[in-house]
Formats: sequence, structure tokens, C-alpha cells
Amino acid sequence: MTTAPAPARRDAEATKAAILKAARHLLARHAHADITLKAVAERAGVSPPLVVKYFGNKDALFARVMSFDTDADDLLDAPLAGLGRHMVQHVLASQRDRGADPLLRIAFAPLHGDHGDVLRANFRAQVTDRLAARLTGPDAGLRAELAVAALIGVGVMYGIARGPHLRESDPDEVADRYGPLVQAQLTP
Amino acid sequence: MTTAPAPARRDAEATKAAILKAARHLLARHAHADITLKAVAERAGVSPPLVVKYFGNKDALFARVMSFDTDADDLLDAPLAGLGRHMVQHVLASQRDRGADPLLRIAFAPLHGDHGDVLRANFRAQVTDRLAARLTGPDAGLRAELAVAALIGVGVMYGIARGPHLRESDPDEVADRYGPLVQAQLTP
Repeated sequence: MTTAPAPARRDAEATKAAILKAARHLLARHAHADITLKAVAERAGVSPPLVVKYFGNKDALFARVMSFDTDADDLLDAPLAGLGRHMVQHVLASQRDRGADPLLRIAFAPLHGDHGDVLRANFRAQVTDRLAARLTGPDAGLRAELAVAALIGVGVMYGIARGPHLRESDPDEVADRYGPLVQAQLTP
Repeated sequence: MTTAPAPARRDAEATKAAILKAARHLLARHAHADITLKAVAERAGVSPPLVVKYFGNKDALFARVMSFDTDADDLLDAPLAGLGRHMVQHVLASQRDRGADPLLRIAFAPLHGDHGDVLRANFRAQVTDRLAARLTGPDAGLRAELAVAALIGVGVMYGIARGPHLRESDPDEVADRYGPLVQAQLTP
């Protein structure tokens, strides 16, 4: 009896993840205003009512997709001394294993008019300001933005430009090369 | 007589630049297939026939916009020993002075279907491979991609995420902080 709910919960989680992935995919390609719940459901391979059941309406779904909160939890989940390397590894692993990126959807802000500003405000509060709050020394805000910039760049190069050398390299080796550069902003 | 053509040439250059800027703006927000020459002309404040006069048809205009050649000339125009700093300064100056970026339009490849692949192929040939050809030592291809990744990230943070600390900082100071990170990939 204690393990019975697990498969159903796993299914629900997988379905929710598929819906979020579909919504993110569409938001990287179409203006917010042009995306329908039906299109999200179709891409996720579920029925529109299921999307409504899990996320409410379109605004609620997109508010969730436009939040960086959960992603930032994982991205920032390391002690400061090793955070640069951890973040590089996390971006590469997300790209490779899930075809996703914790930060990259900020790049699509220009597509979304006023909603782009929501994305920017979330990004600042949930990612760069949150990282800056962990840093000591001068120019913590600038250093946090530069560290995050370096991570976004790796995401663009891997997932969008599809740089062949980056994609074929051992992620640990890439983290060896690039992690210290990010770390130099965190603990100069 | 010798100086008479100059103003006309300057006008023509300014008009061409306005048309290219309008085309880039639209390509960052709409799928290639949805953009008309008329929309480009309207945004540039010129007549559609003038766009045709300067660039031929829509395909020719977009081939030009999807090329990184001219931008890479300026971006890479420094001796290797100081190239990291130069590239960071060049990206920041382009963003600040022209609201443009030599590299950033690669981020919009997902919008453009098959044309996105043209953008990716150009980007590789005209930017990352061209930079890699100047590097010595092991993993030149990977190092070139990582150096360019770091630059793209700064462009996203400045022009799209609009990071307030980065935008308010002295570009020379940013280049002092971030240039060595790029340089570390070029001449490790």
C-alpha cells in the first residue's frame, strides 16, 4: 500500500515535465501571444484538459515556464568555492541529458513583448541577484552578471549554435577549462 | 568636385545600415518566413523599392543579414596577445553605441527553421573556425568555441537580459575583468 501511489506520481511528474518542455520549446520559437494551450498539449502528446488540470490556464502555465526559481535551485546548489565548476557542469548536463538549459530562455525575451520584461525581472531576482547575494567583495552585482553571462554563452554555443567541438568534448574536460573562468568572477 | 559625391555616399551607407538594422530586429522576433520586404522597409523608414535597389530580393537581403563576415572582421581585428580584451570591448561598444552585437543573432537560429542551419553554418565558418585557425596548441576548436561562447554570453546579458550592473559599468573595467577569461582560451 505504501508504494502503490509511486507509479502514478511518476507518471504525473513525467507528464508535467513534458508539458513544461513543450511550452519552453514553443516559447523559443513563437511570440507568447501566438501560442495556444492546444499547441502546447499537442506538442507534449497530451490532451488540452490535462494541461489545464496540471497548470490551470495559459497564463499560469507560462508564469511557471517564465520562472527560473526551480532551475536556479539546482544551478546554485554547491558551496561557493566550487560553484563555478558546478554551474558549468550543470549547464552541460542539462543540455546533454534533457536538451534543456536552466538559463537559456532569457535569450528569447525579445520575442515576447511585455512578457519579455517579466522574464527579465524574474531572471534578475531569481538568478543574478540571488547569486550576487552570496558573493563578498566589491562589484558583487557585476561579477554575478558576468559569471551568469559566461554560463548563458555556453548554453547558446551548445544548444543553439551547436558548436561541434563543445558537443563532442568530455563535459568534465570542458568544466576544467571553463569552470575556473566562471569561478574567477565568484571568488576573484 | 572631388568631395561632391561624399554626402550621397554617406546617405546611401546610412540607409543601407538602417535597412540591415531593421532586418536584424525583425529576425530576432519573427520567423524568417513571416517577414516581408515591406515590413523591413517600413521599420527602416524607406520605400520597399529602395530595399530592392540596395539588396536585391528578400533572400539576398537575409543572406547578408545571416552572414557574420563583416562583423567578424572587426571582432577579430587585433593581435592574438590582446584579442580577448579587444573582443570584449568590441561587443560592449557595439551594444552600447549601435544597439547591435556582432554575434548575438546566432541565438535566434531556432526561429528560422532551415534558415537557422544557414545561420549556424555561417557562424561556424566565419567566426569559430576562423578564430580557431589563429590558435596554436591542443583543442584549438574547443577553445575557440568557448571564447566565443563567453562573448555571446556578454551580449545576451547586456542586450537581452539587460543586466543593470553590466550596463552601468565602465566598459574598460568590464574588459579588465572579463577579457582575461576570454584570453585564457586563446593563449592558455
